[in-house]
Amino acid sequence: MGLEIERKFLVDPSLWSPQGEGTLFRQGYLSSAEACVVRVRLAGDEAFLTVKGATSGVTRLEFEYRIPREDAMVLLDMLCGPAIIEKTRYRRRFGEKLWEIDVFHGENDGLIVAEVELLAEDEVLELPEWVAQEVSDDPRYFNSNLMRCPFNSWA
Amino acid sequence: MGLEIERKFLVDPSLWSPQGEGTLFRQGYLSSAEACVVRVRLAGDEAFLTVKGATSGVTRLEFEYRIPREDAMVLLDMLCGPAIIEKTRYRRRFGEKLWEIDVFHGENDGLIVAEVELLAEDEVLELPEWVAQEVSDDPRYFNSNLMRCPFNSWA
Repeated sequence: MGLEIERKFLVDPSLWSPQGEGTLFRQGYLSSAEACVVRVRLAGDEAFLTVKGATSGVTRLEFEYRIPREDAMVLLDMLCGPAIIEKTRYRRRFGEKLWEIDVFHGENDGLIVAEVELLAEDEVLELPEWVAQEVSDDPRYFNSNLMRCPFNSWA
Repeated sequence: MGLEIERKFLVDPSLWSPQGEGTLFRQGYLSSAEACVVRVRLAGDEAFLTVKGATSGVTRLEFEYRIPREDAMVLLDMLCGPAIIEKTRYRRRFGEKLWEIDVFHGENDGLIVAEVELLAEDEVLELPEWVAQEVSDDPRYFNSNLMRCPFNSWA
């Protein structure tokens, strides 16, 4: 169990490009209500079941449990709906922080989002040059919403 | 992961009474949609996160993961809604089978349900004298529905 404090930014693709292999994520949702999201994620060779509470500012309750990969595949195929999010995650250190950069695929192709975890909501954050607009407060960028209303469907 | 094949019966309280201590269950739901239920359960000293698919006949997809008790308490308090189911579970062997008898509390006080797991849907089942009407097919007796519409509110 933990409190996740996270800020999220769009990435400028003219200033950032992938280094290394990245990890392919396939994830779906058993529940995507505002009050509680239950996510199934295949992350490379691993799999996780994650429960997240409602976001308050940039803070969110989060509980993550490792589950067998075979379970996750059945959960994604049989119980998650209506769509699956696919993205490749890259990690890059900048200053003291490890940033996670998600390059989305499929219906969210063209979207690149960088996330960074903070120790406190008011922590001063040094921004790499390749981050653009902050989208921490924009619910359209929640992965559970990108499933329902993907990036390529936006006006 | 597994397929749960289960039959469920009301218990005649004039022919059955608790033996032994039983285990107190407190459980709530992160999702209680028909297609997918996500349950948090405190069972005595243990805690579980369980995902169940839609019921087809007496068969249901079920995935159960043990989680820290502290996590379950926060999940029940913060993310489960709108109500919590409380019941004491007793186990009793009859013939080849281990029956689970749930004595409900709170808004479901007065309800006693016996469940038994089968190896196949058409398995011949020997019934103890203390079971009454079968309710396997009656969705009112799903615990996720007893939360929303408890036994004592029924007409």
